[in-house]
Amino acid sequence: MNSIKLFFIDIHKNPIFLYGLVLLFGIQKTIAQTDYKLWLQYNKVANSEKITEYQAINKNIVTIGNSETIQIAAKELQNAFKSLINKTVPLSNKTAESANIILANESNLSPELLNQTKTELQKINNEGFVIKTIQLKNKPQILITSKKDIGLLYGIFHYLRLLQTNQSISNLNIIDSPNTNVRILNHWDNLNESVERGYAGSSIWNWQKLPDFIDQRYIDYARANASIGINGTVLNNVNANALILTPQYLEKVKALANTFRPYGIKVYLTARFSAPIEIGKLNTADPLSSEVQQWWKDKAKEIYKYIPDFGGFLVKANSEGQPGPQNYGRNHVDGANMLADAIAPFGGIVMWRAFVYSEHDADDRAKQAYSEFVPYDGKFRDNVIVQVKNGAIDFQPREPFHPLFGAMPKTPLMMEFQITQEYLGFSTHLVFLPKLFQETLEADTFSKGKGSSIAKIIDGSLDNHQLTGIAGVANIGSDLNWCGHPFAQANWYGFGRLAWNPNLDSKTIAEEWLRMTFSNDEKFVLPVQEMMIESREAVVNYMTPLGLHHIMDTGHHYGPGPWVSNLSRPEWNPVYYHKADKNGIGFDRSSTGSNATAQYAPEVAKEFNDIAKCPEKDLLWFHHVSWDYKLKNGATLWNGLALKYQEGVNQVASMQSTWNKIKPYVDEQRFNEVEMLLNIQQKEAKWWRDACLLYFQQFSGKDLPSGVEKPTQTLEYFKSLKFPFAPGNN
Amino acid sequence: MNSIKLFFIDIHKNPIFLYGLVLLFGIQKTIAQTDYKLWLQYNKVANSEKITEYQAINKNIVTIGNSETIQIAAKELQNAFKSLINKTVPLSNKTAESANIILANESNLSPELLNQTKTELQKINNEGFVIKTIQLKNKPQILITSKKDIGLLYGIFHYLRLLQTNQSISNLNIIDSPNTNVRILNHWDNLNESVERGYAGSSIWNWQKLPDFIDQRYIDYARANASIGINGTVLNNVNANALILTPQYLEKVKALANTFRPYGIKVYLTARFSAPIEIGKLNTADPLSSEVQQWWKDKAKEIYKYIPDFGGFLVKANSEGQPGPQNYGRNHVDGANMLADAIAPFGGIVMWRAFVYSEHDADDRAKQAYSEFVPYDGKFRDNVIVQVKNGAIDFQPREPFHPLFGAMPKTPLMMEFQITQEYLGFSTHLVFLPKLFQETLEADTFSKGKGSSIAKIIDGSLDNHQLTGIAGVANIGSDLNWCGHPFAQANWYGFGRLAWNPNLDSKTIAEEWLRMTFSNDEKFVLPVQEMMIESREAVVNYMTPLGLHHIMDTGHHYGPGPWVSNLSRPEWNPVYYHKADKNGIGFDRSSTGSNATAQYAPEVAKEFNDIAKCPEKDLLWFHHVSWDYKLKNGATLWNGLALKYQEGVNQVASMQSTWNKIKPYVDEQRFNEVEMLLNIQQKEAKWWRDACLLYFQQFSGKDLPSGVEKPTQTLEYFKSLKFPFAPGNN
Repeated sequence: MNSIKLFFIDIHKNPIFLYGLVLLFGIQKTIAQTDYKLWLQYNKVANSEKITEYQAINKNIVTIGNSETIQIAAKELQNAFKSLINKTVPLSNKTAESANIILANESNLSPELLNQTKTELQKINNEGFVIKTIQLKNKPQILITSKKDIGLLYGIFHYLRLLQTNQSISNLNIIDSPNTNVRILNHWDNLNESVERGYAGSSIWNWQKLPDFIDQRYIDYARANASIGINGTVLNNVNANALILTPQYLEKVKALANTFRPYGIKVYLTARFSAPIEIGKLNTADPLSSEVQQWWKDKAKEIYKYIPDFGGFLVKANSEGQPGPQNYGRNHVDGANMLADAIAPFGGIVMWRAFVYSEHDADDRAKQAYSEFVPYDGKFRDNVIVQVKNGAIDFQPREPFHPLFGAMPKTPLMMEFQITQEYLGFSTHLVFLPKLFQETLEADTFSKGKGSSIAKIIDGSLDNHQLTGIAGVANIGSDLNWCGHPFAQANWYGFGRLAWNPNLDSKTIAEEWLRMTFSNDEKFVLPVQEMMIESREAVVNYMTPLGLHHIMDTGHHYGPGPWVSNLSRPEWNPVYYHKADKNGIGFDRSSTGSNATAQYAPEVAKEFNDIAKCPEKDLLWFHHVSWDYKLKNGATLWNGLALKYQEGVNQVASMQSTWNKIKPYVDEQRFNEVEMLLNIQQKEAKWWRDACLLYFQQFSGKDLPSGVEKPTQTLEYFKSLKFPFAPGNN
Repeated sequence: MNSIKLFFIDIHKNPIFLYGLVLLFGIQKTIAQTDYKLWLQYNKVANSEKITEYQAINKNIVTIGNSETIQIAAKELQNAFKSLINKTVPLSNKTAESANIILANESNLSPELLNQTKTELQKINNEGFVIKTIQLKNKPQILITSKKDIGLLYGIFHYLRLLQTNQSISNLNIIDSPNTNVRILNHWDNLNESVERGYAGSSIWNWQKLPDFIDQRYIDYARANASIGINGTVLNNVNANALILTPQYLEKVKALANTFRPYGIKVYLTARFSAPIEIGKLNTADPLSSEVQQWWKDKAKEIYKYIPDFGGFLVKANSEGQPGPQNYGRNHVDGANMLADAIAPFGGIVMWRAFVYSEHDADDRAKQAYSEFVPYDGKFRDNVIVQVKNGAIDFQPREPFHPLFGAMPKTPLMMEFQITQEYLGFSTHLVFLPKLFQETLEADTFSKGKGSSIAKIIDGSLDNHQLTGIAGVANIGSDLNWCGHPFAQANWYGFGRLAWNPNLDSKTIAEEWLRMTFSNDEKFVLPVQEMMIESREAVVNYMTPLGLHHIMDTGHHYGPGPWVSNLSRPEWNPVYYHKADKNGIGFDRSSTGSNATAQYAPEVAKEFNDIAKCPEKDLLWFHHVSWDYKLKNGATLWNGLALKYQEGVNQVASMQSTWNKIKPYVDEQRFNEVEMLLNIQQKEAKWWRDACLLYFQQFSGKDLPSGVEKPTQTLEYFKSLKFPFAPGNN
């Protein structure tokens, strides 16, 4: 209503101006659904030189081959050309006497075409592609080729991205392959259609109407994923329900798998470890019981009858109350290998999560996954990959990299990023996560000396693993715009791009996404790109600066709750993590404390362990620091902390100011949406600053330094706030 | 996937044909969102004569007055003209020297304009409108006028409907007013964003992002409702949570009220009777306690500070476990009047539901609401209206009209219809409900002799009530198409049209909706209209023919469950309702049984009470009938029942055949959607037939008559089906 109201205030001042406005803007679509189209807007190219160039070369689409995939690729090209260059481009299976864009995999290339791309084809893998400008019949042609047809689909999306971002398409010679095998979304979707940690409506899987109703959403979901190279999806929550493995649901899963197959996307499911009891009517789920082993073998066989290319299982076992092998005195290796053996004959894999910690273990929670998993290195079957979160706690605004990376060289490790913003402002805060992802991927573990980056562990190159992968916990729901925030779409996009190539720069990703999603106008792209890049540091500053972590309110994790101390498990309480007292604040994980620093390679440990060398961004993660400690800029810790909170608030104000300036370049609806959401983010950033500083001030006993705004409410007020229906908490 | 697969089967047969097809259809939008636009598609008028006529008269839009409502009306016209007649029609506040369409309420009319519409204006009420072709400056003009600006908005939507349905717009003289005051949707939406009995995704109210984020959905929801005259919305579930009445939520409710206000839509809330205890910290909610009375008075005052035109409360009290005045030994009058007194100073109303029955009352559930409420006739405050479901049980595919209609002449009664298909196939079955609504509204209660139709009770004319209303339990959710089934949108539409004018014919409504939503081509409209009209009888036949009722499976009400007999309350069990035994089937509600027939006026009671006179459609509702009883067509009851089930299945097959024939007239996406959904409906109709006949056959001991297909599964199979996650059951 804000915008409408402002609009009508103007009326009274200047009725003639108003009529002009209505005339000008009134004919815009009131039911705008731009949001739904994600980065596949295919807006008409505004640059007239570019459009002429694009029209000249995209005269005919030629496909050789008849797979569903190649037909989808051709249809996507036709649709896109219609919008991007306002041209109905004919489709044929023969090259015309003019410019053509040719789609054919290696085996369908004529000798003449093969000859021109042989060298390039040798450089790609089974999912890669080549886009090359060649000459044929004395005309320039664009040949998109690959080993398999899926490469053609990836190729046309790459090609379209060139057009969408107004790049030149003359003399192309692009050779690209994904750096990882399994590029996968993890949907934490429940069978009742709620989404754990979902902030964009309910699940997009309509289990009630499946298998017979194929929602258009499924197809658009597959298109969007294929456009960024995502090739797998785990449909259901890691806190799993065994019913998904019954025929009633497998019929439904099959329908989704059939829909996704031509887009190169394999379906995976979570396996509830106690399924043999719950749906198999056995008395045990002991992984060493032959009866249990046989049950899983039979179950795997059954699943593959429905879905011959089923991807495999994701398992959360003996973690946060989920059943697992430890219920029977067995260990993670026993559990994972049992499932791996069941699924191996069919080519499936097991993604076994390392997110474990126990209320019975008094040791620092940050250390437990390492302590438990490192001894298992080399003991898992070949088709098991261990899925490790980026940090040792849980998807915080900032965490030092997880010490497991580099510590299990004989075991393939896959990354688990969280795209949904459980701890980063739900779907109301604009936070560009690829910046966070990049920070982790670039981190150097020193596990094989300098240059042992996490990206190299993930892509298998450091330890020579064939099975590689990156998972992202999806931020997708039934909202019209899929992700709840127009800019949250960039996190889905960016995750996919980094999964394809973990070495990409987040600035490049932001720019690509902005151009495809909004506008190629540099007056828009440059400031908004900068805003996106800064947004991640902003959320760290106003929520958890200087290495603070897990001080969100309880259960739903919405808003600040540093005072929470009454939860049943000690490590679920924020006070466990910040340990503020009269002497200072922070978790001593150095050698004088929990010694978590010793889990890193010596080069890294040395740095983290020494308060003088520890990066200030991780200071309170590794050290309990006196309020009077002098930071590098000369401020005391208390003053520095307070100023960081203020800086976060200021950064959001600066984001608002940037957004207001780019209004001319964005459609009205999305402009208004982001404007409203930034207002919320600004309010909540102040809430975080005020609540945390008032709370910590009780311990520091010091005044707020100048430059930090006075809180507008009391600590008691902030503590009184309750959000019983905050979303995602199920 | 079916359609895609079929498509690719064709390829192999005829590749050249394929390329033609791709060329022809490939450029259609793959991300189609036609569904979202509801009946406001504003497709370009295909008839060239009509478009010429429309372009000639719609040259300028002239608005006199500056309210938000009039601006919204003008903007809607501009948007619609742009699409419908491909014309950018300028907007001004002065009539031009050519044809104009003029919007102005009575007080803004010039003497010249007023003079030409004085007579008509006398015939409308505060929400009505006049659309009249007049002459001005020797040019034909279309004047839309009203008492209040909301009438202008209703007027332009009526006017646009003429264009959307390709009617003539020359010599117009339309005078129209709504026949009821309160035309209201009841959203059974919970604060956790689930929807009780919702089959179209989650709630469209995003409580988490309110009040600061105004979703485009809210605006489009308001537009859609205004276009059919709906003027009220109860935002939350009748199984209420008191938190909605706290400041935290009232802020959010206020934001919605502000959004809806210019569209003429008032916001209402459900009042949980125990709110004074739960959020007011009182020890009682006794309506005779002065403390409780004061609490509600203060609460009303508080609400009206947020929302000065708040509509009032909807209350479900002492029904299905909800708290109410009886918890304190008081009665419904005590409860309703207490709330009415609190809200009266601010102009609010109380809608008190009569949907009550008790597990402690051994009497026929169908009789209990009448028995309880009739003694209260005349005892409610003036601002109380009693909300009565169309039938005495619960929104069945068919029920005789509720005996309360006609039995409380001194009390305003409002109708409660259920638009969401709790008992009619969720959002997978195509059932056109206005046919059901019309059947109830046309029913003659004989309460003041022949001609005492329910429509006349509802519109206040029979008993001379000023406060009148119709409520519909919404079928709206977060699905892209709002209602889960393209044809379920027609039920929202038709509810609104009947609320405006309870005398409308459902055939007319179907035709209007089809033309606006799909196409004006008669080759499409006529067969599909017929299909819609028949669809209601189809669902009765394959679920509950001949007066059967409430034999759905337990809790979720999905699919057949005539065998269910283990629920804690006797009247929750299907066996309670069908009473099948060796002697026959049906609930004896005649004078030899529960004597529910005596609750109707003597003329009606006489008919229902006599098995020979009772309409066969209601036979088993009122009588326990021998399996060998001869129906009017000469068949035995058993054979007739079986043939009815088969007829229902056949009717769905016929709907499928109709739909397949109209393929050329519908966009690909919606064609496919409806095709898939009709396939599900066909499967489920057979499931219903087979399960019910196998079950009842145990009692009748008779073979299926010829013409009835053999069941493909056993009764045990049907009884074994379980749907733990069927939607809406929360």
